[in-house]
Amino acid sequence: MSIIKTTADLQDWFQQADRRNKTLGFVPTMGYLHEGHLSLIRAAKDQNDLVAVSIFVNPTQFAPGEDYESYPRDTDRDYQLAMEAGADVVFVPAVEEIYPPGASTEVTVTGGITRKLCGISRPTHFQGVTRVVNILFNIMQPNRAYFGQKDAQQSLIIKKMVRELHLPVEIVVCPIVREADGLAMSSRNVYLTPEERQQAVCLNNALQKAESYFKSDTPDHAVIDKLRSIIKREIESHPLACIDYCEIFDGETLEDIDEILPGKNALAAVAVKFSKARLLDNRVLSI
Amino acid sequence: MSIIKTTADLQDWFQQADRRNKTLGFVPTMGYLHEGHLSLIRAAKDQNDLVAVSIFVNPTQFAPGEDYESYPRDTDRDYQLAMEAGADVVFVPAVEEIYPPGASTEVTVTGGITRKLCGISRPTHFQGVTRVVNILFNIMQPNRAYFGQKDAQQSLIIKKMVRELHLPVEIVVCPIVREADGLAMSSRNVYLTPEERQQAVCLNNALQKAESYFKSDTPDHAVIDKLRSIIKREIESHPLACIDYCEIFDGETLEDIDEILPGKNALAAVAVKFSKARLLDNRVLSI
Repeated sequence: MSIIKTTADLQDWFQQADRRNKTLGFVPTMGYLHEGHLSLIRAAKDQNDLVAVSIFVNPTQFAPGEDYESYPRDTDRDYQLAMEAGADVVFVPAVEEIYPPGASTEVTVTGGITRKLCGISRPTHFQGVTRVVNILFNIMQPNRAYFGQKDAQQSLIIKKMVRELHLPVEIVVCPIVREADGLAMSSRNVYLTPEERQQAVCLNNALQKAESYFKSDTPDHAVIDKLRSIIKREIESHPLACIDYCEIFDGETLEDIDEILPGKNALAAVAVKFSKARLLDNRVLSI
Repeated sequence: MSIIKTTADLQDWFQQADRRNKTLGFVPTMGYLHEGHLSLIRAAKDQNDLVAVSIFVNPTQFAPGEDYESYPRDTDRDYQLAMEAGADVVFVPAVEEIYPPGASTEVTVTGGITRKLCGISRPTHFQGVTRVVNILFNIMQPNRAYFGQKDAQQSLIIKKMVRELHLPVEIVVCPIVREADGLAMSSRNVYLTPEERQQAVCLNNALQKAESYFKSDTPDHAVIDKLRSIIKREIESHPLACIDYCEIFDGETLEDIDEILPGKNALAAVAVKFSKARLLDNRVLSI
């Protein structure tokens, strides 16, 4: 596996790897890889001739005061894990490689899809995400790119960007990978204290309860207010958990819905703060 | 030469043309082709295996009240001219093909470069330009793309976008093509009345005078204020001409300068209104 720091070296690597005659699967990450990332790399390996992983903690998707500086990093361990999962090349650019001095070109998905859920507490976050993903796609020119369902809103926004900018890449969204007790894997789980770690399972448990209710025969089983209150009540019964949001929206557009209708996906999504960690989880609900 | 309306058909055409093993030169236009466009197509023909021309009057680069509806169109004549100049394929998409319903992904070069010159009287113009050019590049994946120096600011902005988004395309800027009397060719020249057409030569004449002065031995030959006043005085001596702007900026960043220094390009750029027509012209000045 090759470790490459500049776009120029990456183009040389592509040349040597006969990239033009092969399919490339791309897994963009911020590093500190866990089983969720590795499942993306393995999926990319299954579906493509070559697999590229990027490790880049992207400054433009963090707001001042967020955890850009303290975001966990362990590049050597990442290389090992990426290689074992099947990566052929890891791209670890410096910030100036991605954003040359004076760079001021923005790629922005406007409208409701970026203003809800994480777009409320992190209003500039998705602008940074679409900007860096667009840049990385232009550098990599992948046939397929892999994202995790845990960041459901991110995946929806990237799919919208790809469709609307006519980017020639297929977006593959892979299922959430969970710890044994159901906690969704996240690089930020390391921020949890032992006590918080125990309570953090409430995100998944709450969504699970709502899903069970949704699948029941109760008359109001598909009513958003009812399902939302089930999730909320479960999380709120954990004293260390502080709800950032708890919402159920249309599963593609994130538009408001009152009820989950047959044939339409709904996205039940939560963000919960535990002192330093802000954790996400979600369920797609559909009949 | 093939005439193609959808991106799906274009991909089929690329397949048949063995595009993957060939270089593609791309000339994006709004149609109503003149010798300026044709010079771009010929340059593309010289430098690439295949030449694609797009004809798309892009609604997002026109503000309400501008000439989107009345912009001159003559597609059949354009096909003939493009073919004669060497185009292999002309892409003429409908608006919904480029912008699917609900499309809300913007590509924006922010900062001074888009806020000066045409960015003042047309504040949303370049956002529409970078958006559509980005989309067309993603559809075409050209090796080289050709733009005219007449739209100097546009070329600088597109080069900046390409550099900062790491788009794998070389931007080639071709010289201004002029009528016999020096008027820069433009699709909008058809808006001129016969009397305006006579006076419209003042843009080029004014820039010519400034350039001659700049090349003279006069002590203030490189002073921006002096050069600007030469241009202004010449245009203002034409009663039908109304100056929108008349500026000299750094030739790459469009930053303010007081003087043209050796080794640095300056861009002298004018926009002048003649009742219905708003015309552009410019000169790059350098020692």
